[in-house]
Amino acid sequence: MDIVTELSKVIHSGRISTAASVISQHNHDASYHPAADPDVVVFPENTKEVSGILSFANKHGIPVTPFGKGSSLEGHAIPYNGGISLDLGLMNQLKTIEETDGYVVAGAGLTQFQLNDALKKHGLFFSVDPGAEAALGGMAGTNASGSYTVKYGTMRDNILDMEVVLPNGEIIHTGSKALKSSSGLHLSGLFAGSEGVLGVITELTLRVHPIPEATVAVRAVFHDFEEAVTAVVRLRTAGLDLARIEFVDAASVAHVNQFAHTTYKEQPTIFFELNGETEHLRHQIDRMEQLLKPFEVAEFLAETDPAAQERLWDARHNLAYYYIQAAPTKQMLVTDVCLPISKLSDAILHARQTIEESGLEAGIVGHVGDGNFHIIAMVDFHNPAEVSAAKQLHAAVVDYTLVNEGTCTGEHGVGVGKKKYQKLEHGAAYELMRTIKRAVDPRGIMNPGKLVD
Amino acid sequence: MDIVTELSKVIHSGRISTAASVISQHNHDASYHPAADPDVVVFPENTKEVSGILSFANKHGIPVTPFGKGSSLEGHAIPYNGGISLDLGLMNQLKTIEETDGYVVAGAGLTQFQLNDALKKHGLFFSVDPGAEAALGGMAGTNASGSYTVKYGTMRDNILDMEVVLPNGEIIHTGSKALKSSSGLHLSGLFAGSEGVLGVITELTLRVHPIPEATVAVRAVFHDFEEAVTAVVRLRTAGLDLARIEFVDAASVAHVNQFAHTTYKEQPTIFFELNGETEHLRHQIDRMEQLLKPFEVAEFLAETDPAAQERLWDARHNLAYYYIQAAPTKQMLVTDVCLPISKLSDAILHARQTIEESGLEAGIVGHVGDGNFHIIAMVDFHNPAEVSAAKQLHAAVVDYTLVNEGTCTGEHGVGVGKKKYQKLEHGAAYELMRTIKRAVDPRGIMNPGKLVD
Repeated sequence: MDIVTELSKVIHSGRISTAASVISQHNHDASYHPAADPDVVVFPENTKEVSGILSFANKHGIPVTPFGKGSSLEGHAIPYNGGISLDLGLMNQLKTIEETDGYVVAGAGLTQFQLNDALKKHGLFFSVDPGAEAALGGMAGTNASGSYTVKYGTMRDNILDMEVVLPNGEIIHTGSKALKSSSGLHLSGLFAGSEGVLGVITELTLRVHPIPEATVAVRAVFHDFEEAVTAVVRLRTAGLDLARIEFVDAASVAHVNQFAHTTYKEQPTIFFELNGETEHLRHQIDRMEQLLKPFEVAEFLAETDPAAQERLWDARHNLAYYYIQAAPTKQMLVTDVCLPISKLSDAILHARQTIEESGLEAGIVGHVGDGNFHIIAMVDFHNPAEVSAAKQLHAAVVDYTLVNEGTCTGEHGVGVGKKKYQKLEHGAAYELMRTIKRAVDPRGIMNPGKLVD
Repeated sequence: MDIVTELSKVIHSGRISTAASVISQHNHDASYHPAADPDVVVFPENTKEVSGILSFANKHGIPVTPFGKGSSLEGHAIPYNGGISLDLGLMNQLKTIEETDGYVVAGAGLTQFQLNDALKKHGLFFSVDPGAEAALGGMAGTNASGSYTVKYGTMRDNILDMEVVLPNGEIIHTGSKALKSSSGLHLSGLFAGSEGVLGVITELTLRVHPIPEATVAVRAVFHDFEEAVTAVVRLRTAGLDLARIEFVDAASVAHVNQFAHTTYKEQPTIFFELNGETEHLRHQIDRMEQLLKPFEVAEFLAETDPAAQERLWDARHNLAYYYIQAAPTKQMLVTDVCLPISKLSDAILHARQTIEESGLEAGIVGHVGDGNFHIIAMVDFHNPAEVSAAKQLHAAVVDYTLVNEGTCTGEHGVGVGKKKYQKLEHGAAYELMRTIKRAVDPRGIMNPGKLVD
């Protein structure tokens, strides 16, 4: 059987490719995980085509790996078993903007940057921002989140409905346009974060929010990280409505100073954003200063001007860039874990010690409000000693997280990078996940090798 | 085989009952759905006993119906196939209050009133309040919500983790103590709203929130309901942080006036609650009045005093009671649907017309912020004409909702009352729900006859 000939019966042959350049665009993602070629790449234009491709693949047991923008950090879009790479890039229509109800309907290939550009003139925004130019389908697949999660929730929290093509080609909707429902099993929740192993997300109905009247950015520098976390908890229990609570560790600030020629205080630094009415923000910032008085805050800087806010966020926003700049011959290994906030200071301390012991150049950044942090490590993947050190660092951080009531990934997803921790984290529930996978995808064609076996 | 003898091998015989009084306590819920006796009622004290009971039941194909407080409005807890009624009332421990992380760990039998009583002295509260004295396990099972959903989310949104006993007796955890996760399939989402058909929820880790500094209650009376909804949308897009947005229709206000001897304006009435800092609330109320100026508001009353707030909410809080009082020989039929907010005015209008045509005494109340509304109808179930009218009213309202992009239940759940609408609402996805049910509960012992077949 010639796979291209067969596929051309369900999708125009001009949108099927085995060209080397197209194959190599679809054999990797944004992570350090090794590349693997698909046999063929298809670019469906609509759901019917996706359904036809899946029916065909299912009949013949051909692996299908959905591909959005290839921005995954855990190898989700890499077709390790070959087969079909299903690129959703052409399914990037923004179909509906519903201002009264506050939702949009978009194709899975649309990116969150494109969505936000289109929403601006309606006075609306989409809150989930994982940083990269990611496709909405992929963001749903990994349950992406980002810095606004503390106020607006994760991807899953913002999904009202998804159109999904099941492995057998059947097209379903996982929800409705209603803001809440107690009808039926919650398929939106199940498919969000399912990493393409249960089917292909083709369209999403997503909640969007009014753009706030104003924002204030605050940079607060603390004596130590434990005090910083205590302060954040104090601010939150006092009812302060914080939209972002991001941190950068002292070693990373030092790294920024060295490579960006800045003079930031080399101490644990928290970046806040508050948004809302101008008058209320002024009052909130006053209250914030008041509430922070009992803490040793070495610097407290609040900015309302957009350009000044941009500068204020520099060390947080550009940290990864400074690490890359400082080690241009190395590759970046990024991992993420998430713990209860009460366990966060100790976890950060542990991670920093482990980094020092590893000898690697690495920074810690993250979302204090969620208990989610990332390690950014520069690794020479041609140097076995560095690779080994990176693996040990990665394992030590995840192991620490799992014995401290956390989860092995807060927002990047499992993919291939965190698969070995699934049984350890989920215990008997892992078997149930496998049962569900087998029931929904009995031939095992959907994104094999990811999330569950 | 003697079921009691067999059960006494896994649970103390003193907590197994076939007494008529116990059977009749477990043969009904708070709904109009007909009663049905279980063969036996068990009162497990811990998860191990639940596991033993399920293993036994699964081996012998005996139906198991979980029972919390029996407050369901759609027959969830009624054991229509007989077998075991599994009463979780003794598993009502509040095991952990974690103030820093903002979560509690509680047995499934604890009620939300008990939980809130215990939380008060910690300055915390649990936000999901379906009105009735419901058990947390049952609230998770139906994905309960209530009036604070617009600000704090549904039950599902507030679940971090659940301990669940699967039909085969296996004990799993659906999540972790981390505030977010992208690890594994999202079992918390799947089990929340699964109505006991996939297993028994035995313990829950739930998010709790700081008690706000102050609250303000507002009653606003509008010319018509369409204008009221437009006003609410205006307030929300302006960024007003509304904690509750409840409404009562004009006919129901008239009903209250007649039976409570009050003199409320007999027009569509919206009840708001805002909470937060005292100073900010004052400012928000001013802004609210400002934003409502373009609308025909016949009355605008804001109260900060707790007793005055209580009085202000009277018509909303006690409406069901006034309907019962007015028709003491009848039974109450309550149903709920949920639509996009843009469709809400027309849906309410349609519902009111349908009520008038039905000849039944019925009111409409609901949650404007979510697009969720309830019909409270007083029905003489011994009068075939009234029963038929009630059935027609119920069907007309659900049908209207489903063709208008809504869901057949926003918070009460499917149970037996909404099962016939599942295929219509979910289409091909209903088959997937059945596939999942079969995979997780192959012998079909868990709450048979509810949600999916």
